[in-house]
Amino acid sequence: NKLWGGRFEDSVTDAVERFSESVSFDKELYKHDIMGSRAHATMLAHQGLMTDSDRDSILHGLDEIERRIEAGNFVWRTDREDVHMNIEAALTDMIGEPAKKLHTARSRNDQVVTDLRLWCREAIDKILARIKQLQVALVSLALKNEGLIVPGYTHLQRAQPVLLQHLLLTYVEQLERDAGRLVDCKDRMNFCPLGACALAGTGLPINRFMTSDALGFTAPMRNSIDAVSDRDFVLEFLSANSITAIHLSRLGEEWVLWASEEFGFLTPSDSVSTGSSIMPQKKNPDPMELVRGKSARVVGDLVTLLVLCKGLPQAYNRDLQEDKEPLFDSVRTILGMLEVTTEFACNITFNHAKIERVLPAGHLDATTLADYLVKKGLPFRTSHEIVGRSVALCIARNCQLSDLTLDQLRSINPIFEEDVYEYLGVESSVKKFGSYGSTGSECVAEQLKFWIAKLHMNQTQE
Amino acid sequence: NKLWGGRFEDSVTDAVERFSESVSFDKELYKHDIMGSRAHATMLAHQGLMTDSDRDSILHGLDEIERRIEAGNFVWRTDREDVHMNIEAALTDMIGEPAKKLHTARSRNDQVVTDLRLWCREAIDKILARIKQLQVALVSLALKNEGLIVPGYTHLQRAQPVLLQHLLLTYVEQLERDAGRLVDCKDRMNFCPLGACALAGTGLPINRFMTSDALGFTAPMRNSIDAVSDRDFVLEFLSANSITAIHLSRLGEEWVLWASEEFGFLTPSDSVSTGSSIMPQKKNPDPMELVRGKSARVVGDLVTLLVLCKGLPQAYNRDLQEDKEPLFDSVRTILGMLEVTTEFACNITFNHAKIERVLPAGHLDATTLADYLVKKGLPFRTSHEIVGRSVALCIARNCQLSDLTLDQLRSINPIFEEDVYEYLGVESSVKKFGSYGSTGSECVAEQLKFWIAKLHMNQTQE
Amino acid sequence: NKLWGGRFEDSVTDAVERFSESVSFDKELYKHDIMGSRAHATMLAHQGLMTDSDRDSILHGLDEIERRIEAGNFVWRTDREDVHMNIEAALTDMIGEPAKKLHTARSRNDQVVTDLRLWCREAIDKILARIKQLQVALVSLALKNEGLIVPGYTHLQRAQPVLLQHLLLTYVEQLERDAGRLVDCKDRMNFCPLGACALAGTGLPINRFMTSDALGFTAPMRNSIDAVSDRDFVLEFLSANSITAIHLSRLGEEWVLWASEEFGFLTPSDSVSTGSSIMPQKKNPDPMELVRGKSARVVGDLVTLLVLCKGLPQAYNRDLQEDKEPLFDSVRTILGMLEVTTEFACNITFNHAKIERVLPAGHLDATTLADYLVKKGLPFRTSHEIVGRSVALCIARNCQLSDLTLDQLRSINPIFEEDVYEYLGVESSVKKFGSYGSTGSECVAEQLKFWIAKLHMNQTQE
Amino acid sequence: NKLWGGRFEDSVTDAVERFSESVSFDKELYKHDIMGSRAHATMLAHQGLMTDSDRDSILHGLDEIERRIEAGNFVWRTDREDVHMNIEAALTDMIGEPAKKLHTARSRNDQVVTDLRLWCREAIDKILARIKQLQVALVSLALKNEGLIVPGYTHLQRAQPVLLQHLLLTYVEQLERDAGRLVDCKDRMNFCPLGACALAGTGLPINRFMTSDALGFTAPMRNSIDAVSDRDFVLEFLSANSITAIHLSRLGEEWVLWASEEFGFLTPSDSVSTGSSIMPQKKNPDPMELVRGKSARVVGDLVTLLVLCKGLPQAYNRDLQEDKEPLFDSVRTILGMLEVTTEFACNITFNHAKIERVLPAGHLDATTLADYLVKKGLPFRTSHEIVGRSVALCIARNCQLSDLTLDQLRSINPIFEEDVYEYLGVESSVKKFGSYGSTGSECVAEQLKFWIAKLHMNQTQE
Repeated sequence: NKLWGGRFEDSVTDAVERFSESVSFDKELYKHDIMGSRAHATMLAHQGLMTDSDRDSILHGLDEIERRIEAGNFVWRTDREDVHMNIEAALTDMIGEPAKKLHTARSRNDQVVTDLRLWCREAIDKILARIKQLQVALVSLALKNEGLIVPGYTHLQRAQPVLLQHLLLTYVEQLERDAGRLVDCKDRMNFCPLGACALAGTGLPINRFMTSDALGFTAPMRNSIDAVSDRDFVLEFLSANSITAIHLSRLGEEWVLWASEEFGFLTPSDSVSTGSSIMPQKKNPDPMELVRGKSARVVGDLVTLLVLCKGLPQAYNRDLQEDKEPLFDSVRTILGMLEVTTEFACNITFNHAKIERVLPAGHLDATTLADYLVKKGLPFRTSHEIVGRSVALCIARNCQLSDLTLDQLRSINPIFEEDVYEYLGVESSVKKFGSYGSTGSECVAEQLKFWIAKLHMNQTQE
Repeated sequence: NKLWGGRFEDSVTDAVERFSESVSFDKELYKHDIMGSRAHATMLAHQGLMTDSDRDSILHGLDEIERRIEAGNFVWRTDREDVHMNIEAALTDMIGEPAKKLHTARSRNDQVVTDLRLWCREAIDKILARIKQLQVALVSLALKNEGLIVPGYTHLQRAQPVLLQHLLLTYVEQLERDAGRLVDCKDRMNFCPLGACALAGTGLPINRFMTSDALGFTAPMRNSIDAVSDRDFVLEFLSANSITAIHLSRLGEEWVLWASEEFGFLTPSDSVSTGSSIMPQKKNPDPMELVRGKSARVVGDLVTLLVLCKGLPQAYNRDLQEDKEPLFDSVRTILGMLEVTTEFACNITFNHAKIERVLPAGHLDATTLADYLVKKGLPFRTSHEIVGRSVALCIARNCQLSDLTLDQLRSINPIFEEDVYEYLGVESSVKKFGSYGSTGSECVAEQLKFWIAKLHMNQTQE
Repeated sequence: NKLWGGRFEDSVTDAVERFSESVSFDKELYKHDIMGSRAHATMLAHQGLMTDSDRDSILHGLDEIERRIEAGNFVWRTDREDVHMNIEAALTDMIGEPAKKLHTARSRNDQVVTDLRLWCREAIDKILARIKQLQVALVSLALKNEGLIVPGYTHLQRAQPVLLQHLLLTYVEQLERDAGRLVDCKDRMNFCPLGACALAGTGLPINRFMTSDALGFTAPMRNSIDAVSDRDFVLEFLSANSITAIHLSRLGEEWVLWASEEFGFLTPSDSVSTGSSIMPQKKNPDPMELVRGKSARVVGDLVTLLVLCKGLPQAYNRDLQEDKEPLFDSVRTILGMLEVTTEFACNITFNHAKIERVLPAGHLDATTLADYLVKKGLPFRTSHEIVGRSVALCIARNCQLSDLTLDQLRSINPIFEEDVYEYLGVESSVKKFGSYGSTGSECVAEQLKFWIAKLHMNQTQE
Repeated sequence: NKLWGGRFEDSVTDAVERFSESVSFDKELYKHDIMGSRAHATMLAHQGLMTDSDRDSILHGLDEIERRIEAGNFVWRTDREDVHMNIEAALTDMIGEPAKKLHTARSRNDQVVTDLRLWCREAIDKILARIKQLQVALVSLALKNEGLIVPGYTHLQRAQPVLLQHLLLTYVEQLERDAGRLVDCKDRMNFCPLGACALAGTGLPINRFMTSDALGFTAPMRNSIDAVSDRDFVLEFLSANSITAIHLSRLGEEWVLWASEEFGFLTPSDSVSTGSSIMPQKKNPDPMELVRGKSARVVGDLVTLLVLCKGLPQAYNRDLQEDKEPLFDSVRTILGMLEVTTEFACNITFNHAKIERVLPAGHLDATTLADYLVKKGLPFRTSHEIVGRSVALCIARNCQLSDLTLDQLRSINPIFEEDVYEYLGVESSVKKFGSYGSTGSECVAEQLKFWIAKLHMNQTQE
């Protein structure tokens, strides 16, 4: 009954069939499987390996099967093992004899990896679109919050004042590299395995360049054993997703922190928050917690695939069937994470008043003060020490650096002059930044302009 | 519309709802959720926190809901978020007012972790049963192959001859430790979080010992914050599964090797093999490849959960919703791996003739020969060197140690005497083993007896 | 030159020697290797496999080698590959012929795994001691901060008020389970592989029970192939460490948060903080950041070992040499994490005044208010909704629940009476808790008493 | 005493110092740290932020320090924390006041990530060189074994005959993609963080383009917060290494299998094999086992870094100190794996005679026979079934397909004609392959020519 049953007497046990079937998840590949079969049939006819009329029957049959699948009228059968056999068997049921010619010069080994590369290529394009949407949302959020100064943190301790815009663009930068990795991955994977057959190629006069072109691949893969053996393109894809997921987990952490009572820097709207079944006052930033949490499964999916491939000999081993679920899960998860982060970004308000109120705390201007002393000619290490003592004085007196009188400052070191006050206070401090890439407002405006252009944003649209 | 909606004006966006819902997978917990609610309602009534009549309505309602779920007539609604809210809301639809009292002195935080512990406890019992079945299958396989000597390998190089029975019992031992880990895990997790509420407990006069007893827990958990915060029991469970999976991956590797043309030591029956869609002669040991491959996802599931929990502050965070899918996947996978390995074990034949034919190769008796020299009084290092030179002679003459004449042996060292031939050849070699736990036939028979008793196997049944 | 060189003509290349040597890290096992050799020699003599005088030479030689190693006077030689060969070869250099008898009825396969089990057993004891120290430090910290109420969080949003003591005991509970896992692991691993030899046992009349007893093992391992093949005890140990590490990462996260300007709940002393090379005002809680960060390598070490063991056939494969570095790293890291967390716990001050000042925010008493309404006879869901509306009113008026007048409350629902004020406000709220394990002060006092007794703490000592 | 000590009264405890120090491993960065400091000092002087004479003192001092480090005369001090502070403090000890100016407009945050990017860039170049060496070794091995046919496997079952050259080139292909990933990674990381300072940039008039150019970076990084926060370049690098490691683990597995008695396809020379301390006859392919095993730590290192970065808020957190050891370990391991695999490839002999003897087994020509029937006009599925029955007949008669008489074949299906024998037998079978990338000898010769050119191999050299 199975298509490979020639030499077999018994059929497999139910438990083995249940354990081995893949159609419950690899039907996700139906569209790409049909796409590959179309190209293959067309090539076979062109090469004289089937008649034009057989090819036409096959193409019509495949169209009909695709329609049925998309309409939900296709019965997936576990006893037909996988997406390939389900479609081929349905085709045979439908058009008879010609269907038996479709598998000429093809094996499930090259077929599945062709499907998978096509699927990945499309998935990458979807992710790239979502990354761009999130970048646009972040830039828009920045544009809405011009001039807002927030504490910049290191070690989660207040370090220096930064423009919120500057901070938001950090994530835009990171997402851009995430996109770059995906593009590189797509370019490297976009080679066609079809025609590698089981592993050795074939003696039939096929034309691999023709199928490769028809499917939009750069070229056929050079080595047929390599073509069916390796899954490095999936590993690379899942690695890229994992790095993106880690980036998003960090944004998630940051926004969850900022939404807390203690920080209170941002408020998500009701449309992206949830409540508690027991505590009536709660309003939780769940989507960003889930973004942070779901990063874990993207990493887990990568680990699954690394463990899977470790130590397998060439060429195809059945273990490789297990490549699909982690891949599908990784893609589905990362798409969801990007979508929901974008929605969250569109639905938060930064609490300017609260931020401004708490901003003076933390001596954020201390480094600017050190720069002041450097400009006065002191070596940096000496400046650092003087400012350290000034901060200690503030802590003792429970005040800010800008509250110290000139006399108090001079008691620490006589080099201080009246112009020191131009460097103190958070706003003065931010104004002093000017190095390329820094938080100085002109530098940040430059960056914003760069991204608006790069993302083809029409500023008035936002 | 949401049960926590009191202070909310807008409902969440579709994307957030889709991303946040858990009912599509946590409905797996329905039975344990209902079990928990029954115990909770009974306790509430006993403590005077609801009337007996309210309790009875609730219990009948829950019975009906359980029936509907099991009959497939229950409509799970994504807008009701999770299994808890689906059941509670359905209960409200069904019995009205009394249902609103069920969530008294309870939060989804303690509810979900109660469900999860109940689910894990049951899952462990299922895995323990499957482990035992596999142990029985391995012992039965050993009994069927009494006396068969196979090469023992280190570095995949032939090392010493061993009884196949001895090798099969290795896996029985490993599975026994796997079971031990699960039992420890179950004992450690079997404490009741119910009544911890959101995190702080409650001021209502509940009785946590009563619900704990009713649900078969050892005792209520001592600290309510701990109760809702931690998932270490899932981490421990997934760790135990991972180690089992690694053990099975090694058995998978071994049997795949042994089924190859080159080894040819075993033949799986058709009922546990599959063929090729292109190569008509193929008969592949797919189930054991998949066992090896699926070990990867069990490891990936563990990594997911470790990454998930890393760095989360106390107490409940929404990230923790992501604990379920890896848990369910790990359990489902390990159950399948154990079942299929058991079936495979029941459906393989060891090829005695082939094994016996190839057994002489590899100088498996070299170590026995070294023991002979030690018994003659040589230091082991000296013996090792003499045997090394004897093997070199064999390689040069393309023969086995037992083929060397006494003169040839004596040319290497005069200590050799006629009795050396009692130590040469694979069968003689095996006979010489006698240390506890060794491959000597009496030692192995002892081990077999031990396992037959321990597994309550009736030897005649097999 | 190598001890296995009999049949070899060439020595290995430098690159291979460098890549293959393990002495640079497995010398860590020297003490346990010598311990094992002592027991082995004593047994061999007792069984008549060497003379008493050979045994005495060996024992004296081993003593001398141990002295030299501990004095730093032992030259470890890479060309002697590993700790075993280094010690055996040094013994041969020192005492000559008798040393050649030491490896009788032993292989490096059983030797290394004996060393490793001894090493792990000792390592677990060290970790258990450190866990207890941290528990004592946490309980002491709790005792020092009696009565302090802090916000309890879920979703990092303020949820309910809890006693700091209650929260600190959460970690004590988690550490107790961590210890339990290690004890189980030790019990399961404490079986003796010595005498399994290469994999098959031996024909020489050894006594495995004697060496097992001498080394403090429960019994010899039952199956010699299992004894040399498996590393599940390392996997279990690293799993246990990973779970502990995750627990500590969560404590790290919490204390880093609490040390921030925004939370401001605790201040570490200078002796456990560091500063910035550029920002003079910074005081960073680095040790707890590193605790959080180092959890990652403990997880990475576990993954390394899982990947390592996946798919290896029985019995010993050289891959297994790679088990040691992740094991050593995991143990070293977890010991450091526990030590430093203990020091941190001993060096932080909770800022009572600040905490009390900010405590009213967040409507922490909302759930207590819902309990009030339940006590008045309302179903919980109705109470939840009423309190939800009360909170909404507070948000609109920018006040706390306790600031609402009775009239305002009654405008929401007439059920409110004067006694409602006994349930409002954080302190009142905490007083109302009374369920087992809850944050009620008597419940927490009970828990504290339990831990003081369990940890044998003399309360006056603290 | 610490360079950041201004506001601190106590120094850190010993345990914290031990736990926190990084100099024991980050001294690996000394060369790149000095390189960065040279560029920074030169820029500062050019911008008027220090005098030319200060700059010269610094440059000379740094030269001297580099010399001392390389001569092993530099004392690394743990109390000076890290490589940066060690070098700066030593510089201060040496040249006094001017050294205090070096840290102007710089923080350890941007300094360390600059060092790290420089180090990674260099490490990638080293790995690329090693990858190429291995590719050359594999191509050379192919050239030495022209015409050798080996079984191609799927599911570790014999599938089709392939040229050994074809199989070896599979690994060359995979390594080429590995190299491609590293090149992409290097291009993406080659941007300069220096001048980002702590996180916000600086108000001092530095020139970031000047330092970027001097250090060979493409450009300064656009966003200063991004510059100090992210470690995605390390994640990408470790991902690329992991994929390479997985590829090598598969080669390791394959060669370990092939070196077994059962396969017996290859023999490693003594110079890349090791023996057994107990079994004198053993000759183990240890280097390839270790290559397989060490892949695990490369994966573990990646997981460590993913776990490390998960959920960290911006910008620098001390957790990130833990990025270095996994990075260094990954690079050291992958370099060793590549080197040793190359040596192994140079030191193995394929056993032509043995391979030829065993090649007929396994019906490797079955697929070619199916192609024959397709060429005769049968649909593939029908051909597959006929060949399946022919194989069943062979199994029953214990013969090969080429042993069947034409009558026997015709009894299965009358389509068979005399020309069928041109398709039977392994050698005939291989001759029939002709599709692009297939194992046909001309196709493989094409591939070889491609690689000889691409790798700039002078064929006569080999």
